Amino acid sequence: MGAEVVWDKAAKTVNITGKAAGSLSVPAWPWPYKKLDPKVVKKRGYELYFKGGCMYGAAAAILFTLQEEVGFPYTTIPGDMFKYGAGGAVSWGTLCGALNGAGAMLNLVNKDYSKVLNELIGWYTEYPFPSKDHEDYCKFKNQVTTVAKSPLCHASVSLWVNAAGAKVNSDEKKDRCGKLTGDTAAKAVELLNALVDGNFIAAYKVSTEFEHCMTCHWEKGMDNEQGKMNCVSCHDDHTKK
Amino acid sequence: MGAEVVWDKAAKTVNITGKAAGSLSVPAWPWPYKKLDPKVVKKRGYELYFKGGCMYGAAAAILFTLQEEVGFPYTTIPGDMFKYGAGGAVSWGTLCGALNGAGAMLNLVNKDYSKVLNELIGWYTEYPFPSKDHEDYCKFKNQVTTVAKSPLCHASVSLWVNAAGAKVNSDEKKDRCGKLTGDTAAKAVELLNALVDGNFIAAYKVSTEFEHCMTCHWEKGMDNEQGKMNCVSCHDDHTKK
Repeated sequence: MGAEVVWDKAAKTVNITGKAAGSLSVPAWPWPYKKLDPKVVKKRGYELYFKGGCMYGAAAAILFTLQEEVGFPYTTIPGDMFKYGAGGAVSWGTLCGALNGAGAMLNLVNKDYSKVLNELIGWYTEYPFPSKDHEDYCKFKNQVTTVAKSPLCHASVSLWVNAAGAKVNSDEKKDRCGKLTGDTAAKAVELLNALVDGNFIAAYKVSTEFEHCMTCHWEKGMDNEQGKMNCVSCHDDHTKK
Repeated sequence: MGAEVVWDKAAKTVNITGKAAGSLSVPAWPWPYKKLDPKVVKKRGYELYFKGGCMYGAAAAILFTLQEEVGFPYTTIPGDMFKYGAGGAVSWGTLCGALNGAGAMLNLVNKDYSKVLNELIGWYTEYPFPSKDHEDYCKFKNQVTTVAKSPLCHASVSLWVNAAGAKVNSDEKKDRCGKLTGDTAAKAVELLNALVDGNFIAAYKVSTEFEHCMTCHWEKGMDNEQGKMNCVSCHDDHTKK
């Protein structure tokens, strides 16, 4: 197929060039996971946020640590490919990029990514971000915390800046989102480690408001609503007068 | 570093095993893009949706075609890692997975991913999905179309099922989302091809409602709103009585 493979012993580098469609053998999915230290990932997520945003920060905090701890095949994936998720997808305010980046890595390393990511998203919607775990190195200490009740960047950020009296385009907001990125990546690793150890618990329960709406709209009823976000964040409860 | 590299000439396969942290040289980001045929990607996106959902369908339609057309380094990325985005991230209804998957691939292949993805998301919010381009092979022909006015899976799917009189967990809905996946992946490729040819035009304009709200809430004003989604989808216009 025209692929050239050169092992550079001095540089300890494998150089592969040319067309080799389907011919580089990487391990079958999911890739081999090695338990990581959530504290390492938490600080790294904070730091990497400032280099490429929230999705990049969360994904690369896990990816780069796996590149160091496991090496190949993680070394074939460029962290830069996760920059698009910043600000809820090129600033559209949809899915929080930290969740998006953590989701990609959970998916890469485990077939049970679905239940772990569901738990991570549920946890995110109820967590008072940012945590106080970054006080030793952050730029703005002891920041106001808010609970987004939503996995959307728009809700998470807008709520926080209004509570904190900060601007969206401020250094305070960036510090808050950097901390949140580290917090979310670390939680993903905690959940993943628990899964590997056989200790994973799906603790998240949907809100009582969502549960109320789903008594009619759910799969075995009207089945006309897609999603798990809390309905009352955007809709009135039409069953109440 | 302990990496073993074996070139199997008969199988035309490079086998790399063992620990090789940082030692497999892949091209610097962004990866080399070769213009793809949107029609090929459109049909493939539809087909792959049924194998792994909307994010997988959109990402893999582009990834697998690049694996064939370019080969390495695209052959190192497993399409399976994009399954988590299905249903707006493990069914939470946030960012449409087709946009998420297309976004990852746009980001992987071009430094200007931001303006292309912004255009793709804007286009998505105004497009009457699904297109009629899948009539030759789809399961449900001539389906009702709806304009989501949102990049959120929740809005896109819930609006459509209610307009179509279908269920979220129905084959009709799956066919609609399969078509949408192909439509979105193909549009991403069209925009990318235009960018490569120097013909890219950022045609999307924000809605008049959003523009109205931003006269106060924007970056140089209150700067307290994060995102580009249409405000009035969830909020009342408090400037009107």
